[in-house]
Parts: sequence; structure tokens; C-alpha cells
Amino acid sequence: MADEHDEHSAAYRRGMDELRKHLGPMADAYIQKIKALAPEFAWVNVTFPFGELYAREVLDAKTRELCTVAALTVQGFALPQLKLHVEAALRCGATRDEIVEVITQMIAYGGFPAATNALMTAKAVFDSELSTDRV
Amino acid sequence: MADEHDEHSAAYRRGMDELRKHLGPMADAYIQKIKALAPEFAWVNVTFPFGELYAREVLDAKTRELCTVAALTVQGFALPQLKLHVEAALRCGATRDEIVEVITQMIAYGGFPAATNALMTAKAVFDSELSTDRV
Amino acid sequence: MADEHDEHSAAYRRGMDELRKHLGPMADAYIQKIKALAPEFAWVNVTFPFGELYAREVLDAKTRELCTVAALTVQGFALPQLKLHVEAALRCGATRDEIVEVITQMIAYGGFPAATNALMTAKAVFDSELSTDRV
Amino acid sequence: MADEHDEHSAAYRRGMDELRKHLGPMADAYIQKIKALAPEFAWVNVTFPFGELYAREVLDAKTRELCTVAALTVQGFALPQLKLHVEAALRCGATRDEIVEVITQMIAYGGFPAATNALMTAKAVFDSELSTDRV
Amino acid sequence: MADEHDEHSAAYRRGMDELRKHLGPMADAYIQKIKALAPEFAWVNVTFPFGELYAREVLDAKTRELCTVAALTVQGFALPQLKLHVEAALRCGATRDEIVEVITQMIAYGGFPAATNALMTAKAVFDSELSTDRV
Amino acid sequence: MADEHDEHSAAYRRGMDELRKHLGPMADAYIQKIKALAPEFAWVNVTFPFGELYAREVLDAKTRELCTVAALTVQGFALPQLKLHVEAALRCGATRDEIVEVITQMIAYGGFPAATNALMTAKAVFDSELSTDRV
Repeated sequence: MADEHDEHSAAYRRGMDELRKHLGPMADAYIQKIKALAPEFAWVNVTFPFGELYAREVLDAKTRELCTVAALTVQGFALPQLKLHVEAALRCGATRDEIVEVITQMIAYGGFPAATNALMTAKAVFDSELSTDRV
Repeated sequence: MADEHDEHSAAYRRGMDELRKHLGPMADAYIQKIKALAPEFAWVNVTFPFGELYAREVLDAKTRELCTVAALTVQGFALPQLKLHVEAALRCGATRDEIVEVITQMIAYGGFPAATNALMTAKAVFDSELSTDRV
Repeated sequence: MADEHDEHSAAYRRGMDELRKHLGPMADAYIQKIKALAPEFAWVNVTFPFGELYAREVLDAKTRELCTVAALTVQGFALPQLKLHVEAALRCGATRDEIVEVITQMIAYGGFPAATNALMTAKAVFDSELSTDRV
Repeated sequence: MADEHDEHSAAYRRGMDELRKHLGPMADAYIQKIKALAPEFAWVNVTFPFGELYAREVLDAKTRELCTVAALTVQGFALPQLKLHVEAALRCGATRDEIVEVITQMIAYGGFPAATNALMTAKAVFDSELSTDRV
Repeated sequence: MADEHDEHSAAYRRGMDELRKHLGPMADAYIQKIKALAPEFAWVNVTFPFGELYAREVLDAKTRELCTVAALTVQGFALPQLKLHVEAALRCGATRDEIVEVITQMIAYGGFPAATNALMTAKAVFDSELSTDRV
Repeated sequence: MADEHDEHSAAYRRGMDELRKHLGPMADAYIQKIKALAPEFAWVNVTFPFGELYAREVLDAKTRELCTVAALTVQGFALPQLKLHVEAALRCGATRDEIVEVITQMIAYGGFPAATNALMTAKAVFDSELSTDRV
């Protein structure tokens, strides 16, 4: 509800902190882009998965991201989000080999087409890291 | 190919060992049931995901099972397999809270209907454990 | 976060009110069942879709429910949730003919198998209404 | 449109003929069940896939049914329809081995869970044939 | 069947009228493009969803389009079709806010990745309207 | 397992032979691209679907490819793989009309959006054949 959408609230700030931990410097621009079109969508995106779910301590951030990579791989259609979460998995301590291994394991659950497209998406992230961040 | 389907081969035995580690005592009956109808299906089921993928050491068994729980949750239609892998996750060291947490996280990726059905499937496994194994 | 999960908060109460408006007398039992196993899942189920999304006035409740019927029809695997939302659509003022029409329209987007299973689910709701509620 | 729904028209009769060829004696009951609830749904079910698509001669009936088995296998949620089309494939000249082979091939495109559930559905059809039709 | 594919028939003309009402000036080019490759596909596309389903008066055109937006959002892979139906929804009287609201509601049923990609698709339609149609 | 990944083994060579039969001259480059990033993924891609499944003689290569076209059409997200398998279907003896007919049949199982995107993918393959291979 619009009148409660207080970006200074604990829930929103905790969500943005968590979002920055997973997505890095692109987190703020990502949310601003959504907010310009759909403030309600942006609000629930910050407060619900990040302010609520990811902020809980039952699982560590790396395990959460590997599970998300698995889910997005078998869904097949969510390659822009898979790209974000391959980056997030690296940021949270997963190695490239671990990410490739999860995607390879998903051949068994989602088939080769879904897993191949996920592998190529991960490759694009790794290649872009090599050319931009590491030089 | 039928003439190479040697169940004494290293690949098949490694697959059955891994399958028993994940599925427990039901592993042999599970494969026999498939083999009676479709020997080729049973052969690839043992040698490919279990003889190949799960036998690799890049990821530990618990992380693999949590990723599989995530994937089966968002697919939505694979509740019999989710049941097997909730049991496998427990067998490989995951706690109930961790399994519930992965399923809850999947609300964000697959929506409430898929996650709710997965949660109820996990509940049925936990309830059956209470009534059978622990008394 | 557990320490903020105040069921007397405005967000939670608004969510339960909205949930009761859509699901009727079964709303409380539904949430209690989830809460017994997974309090976090129950909390986000009440506060997020119902406390946030459904409480907004941009769309009327009937249109929201018809859109949900459309979505659950094409997903194909969410028949327990489709049952709840066919009941909710009736409660929010949709006629049986309108619900059947949305499902029929979905043949074009999700194919006959998904639409046929949805139709049979709607039929079960209508039949149960006839035998229980209207006598 | 209701006023054109002439069951004596060439399109409807061609559709029912084709439907009986594929589904056998259950074809009429199947359509009556849908028609009682949703006449428009029943009309398009007869005239569109069966009166139009299946009636064309570009592909033989057996190849069409094997393609449908492949599609329903990877969708995962359409097991009642898969059952009908395993029966239809047998009726149109496919052998059990060919049906099992298509389902096994689908491991590569839809993963093990979808293919395993399809295999068990085919097994139920084969078992029921053994006990009912062949004695 | 080719010999019945009479484009002067009532069914075909009603379908093209309905198609133009929903898709606007692009309707004819869209069907011609399909027809050049696959006349049967074009024929059923005109006569079945548009000549049959959309022509019925049980639901108004705006409600039909919002339901289609909901369905295409949760499917995730149908962004070219979602673009057409966001345009069609605007043409049939839906506001931008209503379209965004349906997509936002779908977070709950299809998850964030599917809903985010749908939102970005709607944004592209809105932006293109601003730059082309309204100046 | 890395130590068994012998590319001179019968399984690997049979898989590469089968892969070249279906994908043609691009087969080797395709596998090399995957292998550079993920050797395990490449190994199972060669030895499992092609070295095992496609090498079996229960179904002819053309029927297998038409079934794969059906499956990839209804999945909706696998257009790069659909492109490969439309080419493979042509290479294994299917005509363009037969491929278009399978895709058109899939309207009934996966809906218009999935089938339309598949049709446009097939058209791109046919157009590219006209401009490159046939001049």
C-alpha cells in the first residue's frame, strides 16, 4: 500500500542492503529502473525476497545462490535473471567450477536444451569478467 | 547399446553405489521397477546422473540435493521425484529447516502455487518419518 | 525476520482480511496448516500477495481472480490452487460461465491438455457447490 | 458461435470420425463429458485439432501420436492426456517398444522426472491392456 | 482441410474482424507472414481463437486481454506474443496501470523472473507508444 | 569421471558419429565450444543422448527428430536447440512440410505462442538454406 512504502523503514533498508550484497554495484540502478515504471513492483522486489527471505540465516548466501542458479536453469526462460545470479553466486563465494557443476547437474532434471542455454549464459558472465573486471 | 550394458562394469557399480547413498534402501527396488519395463531407461538412469554427475567431487552431496529440491520445486509437476529428493537431502545431512528454507526461497522464483505444493510434499515426508522411522 | 512477524500489525491484519474475502471460511485453516510447518512461508503468504498486491484498488477482485484462473490454467501443474481460485472467483462475483470462458480461452495459450484439466477442476468445484452449499 | 455449432456439419463429423480413430470407443463419452459443462470447449476440441489438424494427410497417424507422446512427456503435467495418447499410439500402430523409446529419448529434452512419470503412465496403460483387453 | 479454407466464409471474415479489433493495423501483415509459410497454421489462427473464442460475448475484450497478459506473463517464454497483447489490451481499453497491476500480481503465481521480463516487455511497448504514436 | 573420459572409447566415437549424422559439419565445433568451458558437460552430451539414445535402432532418425521438434516446440524456451533440430530433421529425411505440420499440430498441445515462435524459427532455417546452401 502506497502510504506505507517508507524507504527509510527497517524492512526496505534491510532489503536494499541484502540486494547490494548479492547484486553488487548494479543493485540500486536495477531497482530504480523498475521503480520508474512500477513502484509497487519495486517495493515488493526489495522488501519480500531480499528484505525477508535472503536476510534469514538458515542458509548461507552461497548455498542460496547455487539453489537459485539451479532453479533458473531448469525454468529455461529466465536467462537475464540467471546472468544476475551467476554474478551473485561468484560475489557470494561460489567458484566457476561449482556454478558449472550445478548447471551440469541440471541436465538430469531439466534436460540438455535448458542446461546448455544456462551454460552459455554462465560463459558470457565469465568472459565479461575476464575482459572487464580483471584487467 | 544393449551389448555394452554390463552391470558389473565400473560405471554401473559406481552409479548404484551413489544411488544407494542418496535414495537409501529403496534404490534397488526403484531401478528394478524401471528395468522391468525399459532396460535402456534404467541403464541411463544409473550410469548417467548417478554414475557420472553425482559421483563428481566438485560439490558435496548435501548441496547437490538442496539444488535438486530447488529445481523440482519450481518445475511444479515433479512431486514424486521431490519426495525422493527431500528424503535424499535428509539422508545427505540437510536439516528439515534447510529444506523448508530452500522451498520458501523458491516462492520468489516459481511463485506460491509451486512452492506450496512442494512444502506439502516435504511435510508428508517429515510426517512419515515421524510415524515410521523414529518410533 | 522472526522478530518483526507481528500478527497484530496492520500489514498482517490487512492480509488476513483480504485472504478471507477471497478464500472465505477456509482462509484461517489454510494459513494455520502452513504456519505449523513453516512460519516464514505463512508470513509472506499473508503479507505479500494478500496484504500487498490484492489489497490495491487498481483492479477489482473479480478481474484479479479471473486473471489468476488464466495463469493457473496455463501453468498446468497447480490444480489444488486452481480449485481455491475458482471458488474465490465465484465468491468475488464471477459467474460459472465467465470462469469456463476464461479456461476455454486458455486453449489458445496453453493448449488443450492444460485447459482440459483446468475445466475438470472447475467442474469439481461447481459439482461440490451443488451438493453441499446450495441444498 | 453457438448458432453455427451444427453437429451435422462436415467439419464436426470429420472431427468425430478422426477422434474415434485415435481414442477408440471412449471418444464419444469423452466429448459428452466436456459438452455437458462447456459446449464451446467441446466444439473446438472436435473441430479444431481433430476436424482440422489430425485429418490432414501430411503425416501418418502413428507419427502424429509419437510426436504427441513426446510433447506431453516433456510438459510433465499432462499425465491424463498422455494416457489417452499412449492408447491412441497403440491403436494407430505404434509398438510398446516405440512408445517407450520416445519417452526414453525425452530424458534428454525434459529431464528424468518428466520422463519417469511418463514411463510409469505408459506402464499403467500396458498393464491395464494386459488385464482387460487381451484376456 | 485445404478445400474448405474459404477466406470469404463467415468464420474467416469474423476472425479477421476480431483480429483487427485486437491487434489493429498489424493484423493483416501478421497473418500474411504466417500464411506464406504455413497456410494451415494461418487458417486455424484466424478461425479458431479469433473467429471462435474471442468473438463470443461472455467476456468483454478488455477482460480477455488482461487474462491473456496474465497467462503469457507466467509462461515466461512468450515475450513476442506478450508485446502484441499489451498493445491489444491498450487498444481494448485497459490502462497502463491496469496492465502493470496484472503483471505485478503475477509475481505471486509465476515468480519474479517471469514477471520482471513481462514488465520490461510492457515498458518497451509503452516507450514505443510515447516516441511514435503520440508525437 | 575424468579418468574415464577416453575420447578414443567406443562410446565416445559412436556418440560423435551419431552427432555428425544429425547435426552435420557443425557437430565438432559445437562440442568443442562446450568442452572448452565444461568438459564433463561435453562428455555426457556426446556419450549419453547420442552415444546411447540416438544410436538405438528402435526408431529411425527421421521419426526421432520429428519427436524432438515436437518437444522443443511445446517447451517454448529452447529456440536455439529447435533451430539445430529443424536442420537435423531435414538432414535425416524430413520434408519442410512435415516439419511445419508437426509444429502446427503442437498448437493443440502447447498453444499458439509456443507454436508461432517455433514456426518462425523453422522459417529462419528454411530461409537460410535458400540463401546459402542452394545457390
